[in-house]
Amino acid sequence: MLRPARPPADAALAHEVQRRLDRLTKPPGSLGVLESLVHQLAQVQRSTHPRLRAPHAVVFAGDHGATLHGISAYPSAVTAQMVANFLAGGAAIAVFARTLGLELLVVDAGVAAPLPPHPRLRDAKVRAGTRDYVTGPALTREECALALGRGGELVDELAGHGCNALVLGEMGIGNTASSALLAHRLAGVPLEVAVGRGAGLDDAGLTRKREVLARAAARAPNAREPLDVLAEFGGLEIAMLAGALLALPRTRTLALLDGYIVGAAALVATRLDPAVAAHCVYAHVSAEPGHRALLDALDARPLLDLGLRLGEASGAALAWPLVLAAERMLNEMATFESAGVADRAAP
Amino acid sequence: MLRPARPPADAALAHEVQRRLDRLTKPPGSLGVLESLVHQLAQVQRSTHPRLRAPHAVVFAGDHGATLHGISAYPSAVTAQMVANFLAGGAAIAVFARTLGLELLVVDAGVAAPLPPHPRLRDAKVRAGTRDYVTGPALTREECALALGRGGELVDELAGHGCNALVLGEMGIGNTASSALLAHRLAGVPLEVAVGRGAGLDDAGLTRKREVLARAAARAPNAREPLDVLAEFGGLEIAMLAGALLALPRTRTLALLDGYIVGAAALVATRLDPAVAAHCVYAHVSAEPGHRALLDALDARPLLDLGLRLGEASGAALAWPLVLAAERMLNEMATFESAGVADRAAP
Repeated sequence: MLRPARPPADAALAHEVQRRLDRLTKPPGSLGVLESLVHQLAQVQRSTHPRLRAPHAVVFAGDHGATLHGISAYPSAVTAQMVANFLAGGAAIAVFARTLGLELLVVDAGVAAPLPPHPRLRDAKVRAGTRDYVTGPALTREECALALGRGGELVDELAGHGCNALVLGEMGIGNTASSALLAHRLAGVPLEVAVGRGAGLDDAGLTRKREVLARAAARAPNAREPLDVLAEFGGLEIAMLAGALLALPRTRTLALLDGYIVGAAALVATRLDPAVAAHCVYAHVSAEPGHRALLDALDARPLLDLGLRLGEASGAALAWPLVLAAERMLNEMATFESAGVADRAAP
Repeated sequence: MLRPARPPADAALAHEVQRRLDRLTKPPGSLGVLESLVHQLAQVQRSTHPRLRAPHAVVFAGDHGATLHGISAYPSAVTAQMVANFLAGGAAIAVFARTLGLELLVVDAGVAAPLPPHPRLRDAKVRAGTRDYVTGPALTREECALALGRGGELVDELAGHGCNALVLGEMGIGNTASSALLAHRLAGVPLEVAVGRGAGLDDAGLTRKREVLARAAARAPNAREPLDVLAEFGGLEIAMLAGALLALPRTRTLALLDGYIVGAAALVATRLDPAVAAHCVYAHVSAEPGHRALLDALDARPLLDLGLRLGEASGAALAWPLVLAAERMLNEMATFESAGVADRAAP
């Protein structure tokens, strides 16, 4: 639980970081997962003294054509309404970002409604919502590529402005459904496990969602490759998230990943480039039942387990202080020598 | 997992708070444990609009006579050295308090060495360390009462200055041993489970610690009542923590509790006054094996599980942003009406 599962890319760096961790005024290993986070951050930044700079919470928003089948507890119009709520500062992620020291940026990856300009809103709309994946592919391969590219460009641009830490989330009525199809097809999660209540479907709604998604899966039985599955089932916010994740290695950025939908994007991104995994911190395991199976498929150990199921990057934002505290621990704690504290039992 | 286990003291208040939670722009219940924290905070402050004010991290320090038996990986002198490190800003809790917006206060409950005055140090020393509990009681009943009283006075004083939120921790070489004896005697945790490696004993040290504590337990076979057990096995920092906890209901203060040692203090305090329990948030389950059994005995569900075993209030500090975010969520989030967001599926 406490050490990175994968061997570090740079063993000499890991050794140096461990040496520093063990000189800090605390019993070796006593900060548990925070010490693992320090190692991860050091590898990401390729530095014995990594620093987190200009952290941004980025929420990718998009709509889903398949919502016409009644697979969500809320109407599709809520996506745009919630984007307005993010920008006005009233949504959970806006409150958490303010409280926890994160700059909030909202990205229109594919919201159905036109959105008025706002300083915190990035217009990256590929199209006004995905197509209904029950009757055909949600996206063309070109649309998919465009979304991936724009996600990556955004991360490049943020990195160019000094940001090296991202808190990633999404908003999109119907997007637990796309995520379920991705988890099913890319990670082999059975549909019964992968399909949950999302924002709060009742029993009849859940039954309907399962039926609709079984039909969608049956329509495209041969889609197996990440980009094929993504084009078949969407959504644009997931594709753009995947693109953002693919840009992490080249920008040496660490990302905190929110719940089920961001996990589905991580599935796509890590299949396309396994080097992405080392840059991802899984913030929490959500109450959506498929998420744990998805995290298992990603070999991911989430930081929090708080029964969250809101999305919006809210869970990732809540885990941000743990990552920040880990960095500060490494950089600001005294050593046994500097503090004049005796190390281990005196004779 | 998601709702308070105990029925709320004020059901009408809980109803009002739930009504407000369900009007906020999020699916009902989707913020999981944070919604439980909101309920708890509302009950503690007896308010539909509770606010957290002037949060303090308070670290109670004390020494233990029984360390002469070699039951800790570090020498007793480290207690005073670490207090100096807290005050100089180089210890983990000092770094975390700075990072997370907590005022740090250190309390000398019973450190063996004299400590030079410091603005962040409170002198509440009852005696210079406890007596060796292998050969006799660690404390007299009078010393115990003095420590309890001083803990309560401190919380009264902080509350008088506007503080209504505490992050509680401790420092004391040898204090996982006292905590093990308290967990064993007050909660029936078998010594094999209750006694762990503390700050990092090796196998031989762990065997020795088990033997020493078995002898201590055998010396005082009839101590069963909380104050008797506390006097028999100490320590002063645990007694003062228990006193602080007993002051929570009268000051309407919420406390975030760190690991095993603070848990042992909570065992004492909640046995003396069950009303304390509603004011306690258990921050994390530590890597010390007895802690989970102790939390079970307290019917407590910890917020974090990060393999921490440092003490110093470090784990409680790391959970502080979750409590703060819960309060801000209640007070700052928009409602469906105010934000113009559609609630539930449109026809």
